[in-house]
Amino acid sequence: MAGDSYPVDEINRVKRRHDRGAYDEATVHALLDAAALCHVSYIIDGQPFCTPTLFWREGRQLYWHGSAASRMLRNLSDGEPVCLTVTHLDALILARSAFNHSADYRSVMAFGHARLVEDPEEKRRALVMMVDRLYPGRTAELRPTTDQEIKATSVISMEIERASAKIRAKGVIDDDEDYALPIYAERLPVRTIVGAPEPCSRLSPGARRPDHLGGYRADRPFDEALAEAHAAAYRD
Amino acid sequence: MAGDSYPVDEINRVKRRHDRGAYDEATVHALLDAAALCHVSYIIDGQPFCTPTLFWREGRQLYWHGSAASRMLRNLSDGEPVCLTVTHLDALILARSAFNHSADYRSVMAFGHARLVEDPEEKRRALVMMVDRLYPGRTAELRPTTDQEIKATSVISMEIERASAKIRAKGVIDDDEDYALPIYAERLPVRTIVGAPEPCSRLSPGARRPDHLGGYRADRPFDEALAEAHAAAYRD
Repeated sequence: MAGDSYPVDEINRVKRRHDRGAYDEATVHALLDAAALCHVSYIIDGQPFCTPTLFWREGRQLYWHGSAASRMLRNLSDGEPVCLTVTHLDALILARSAFNHSADYRSVMAFGHARLVEDPEEKRRALVMMVDRLYPGRTAELRPTTDQEIKATSVISMEIERASAKIRAKGVIDDDEDYALPIYAERLPVRTIVGAPEPCSRLSPGARRPDHLGGYRADRPFDEALAEAHAAAYRD
Repeated sequence: MAGDSYPVDEINRVKRRHDRGAYDEATVHALLDAAALCHVSYIIDGQPFCTPTLFWREGRQLYWHGSAASRMLRNLSDGEPVCLTVTHLDALILARSAFNHSADYRSVMAFGHARLVEDPEEKRRALVMMVDRLYPGRTAELRPTTDQEIKATSVISMEIERASAKIRAKGVIDDDEDYALPIYAERLPVRTIVGAPEPCSRLSPGARRPDHLGGYRADRPFDEALAEAHAAAYRD
């Protein structure tokens, strides 16, 4: 499927700074798979909501979850339109003029219609991948999920109908005539990294940190660890 | 104003996990001021959009900007309903059951109606604070903004009419009977930090890193540096 792209129309065309836009699956999917957190926008009675949640991608499907009691779920089971956005902030840009201050970032906006996952087999699989997408193979080592827990967890799925990626990775760009000014300018990196793991204080004597968590090492870029885990989870 | 809270109704009441909700200004504003990036949700022709952008707070007003060409701006100048969300992801939580996997996070959803800032004095002030909120005092050291740049920059403002904060900071919580199982569990911190500043390669000989950037030190938590800068910018 390398080289495939999402269709482009008025909804997902990058209008402002269109030189920063991309629509190919490779770019869009890589940015999604390097994230755990997204923001989901949806409408209830004419009011937009923007809810942060953990999510993951499987092919052109996006999945996220919540309890059956949540506001979003009550309203998304009928194929409501949704925009799911992922943003990686990479740096603040301090230029020589206020106008050229900016940020380096990588983002994806994905558009589609959300539906409640009701097929038992798809739901069972989704509840496994919700964990294994982050920690490949982990579910098999956990206390099995009960029927009651399955019932209490709702999973939402959205086929990506349109998507756009937007990337700025240019550092400081000033107007030509401004470079000579004695004004300090810099790219100030912002890094999201894995911290030192904090084992549960109530671990049983037999519990050791399993190999499937090896990718989450202190100080490693979080996006890199997430992308690696996603690739491992979907390799099989 | 200490102790003031935002009104609570059906729009902003935290429904799922309501024990995690808060509505007081102190909590809501602290989480907003510790962030530079937000996600803004708005509606165009029945389609929700979720756009990442830099923003800042001044009292109960939120501000963000974009070029006059952007899709959002064309549609937000008439008082359209908006939800602006900020999320700090603090940790992934690996429990002994799939069901108890979770995340520690701090988020705010702010609701209001967006308007284009058209008053020249308010716009002038906003263009200063857009920079100075991050780097207190910096605007005074920059090449002055031209009339053309002011015209090319649109600023949007939203009074926070309702808001809710939602915080999970509990680490691993398992079912009582699961703690004895020989299953590994941990809190995996996610840290967003300041990286080592990268001075522009074309700095003029007279340009040194100014004191107002001293708070942005390598390895410092980004939210802490942002909160400190915001406090300094609005102290005067």
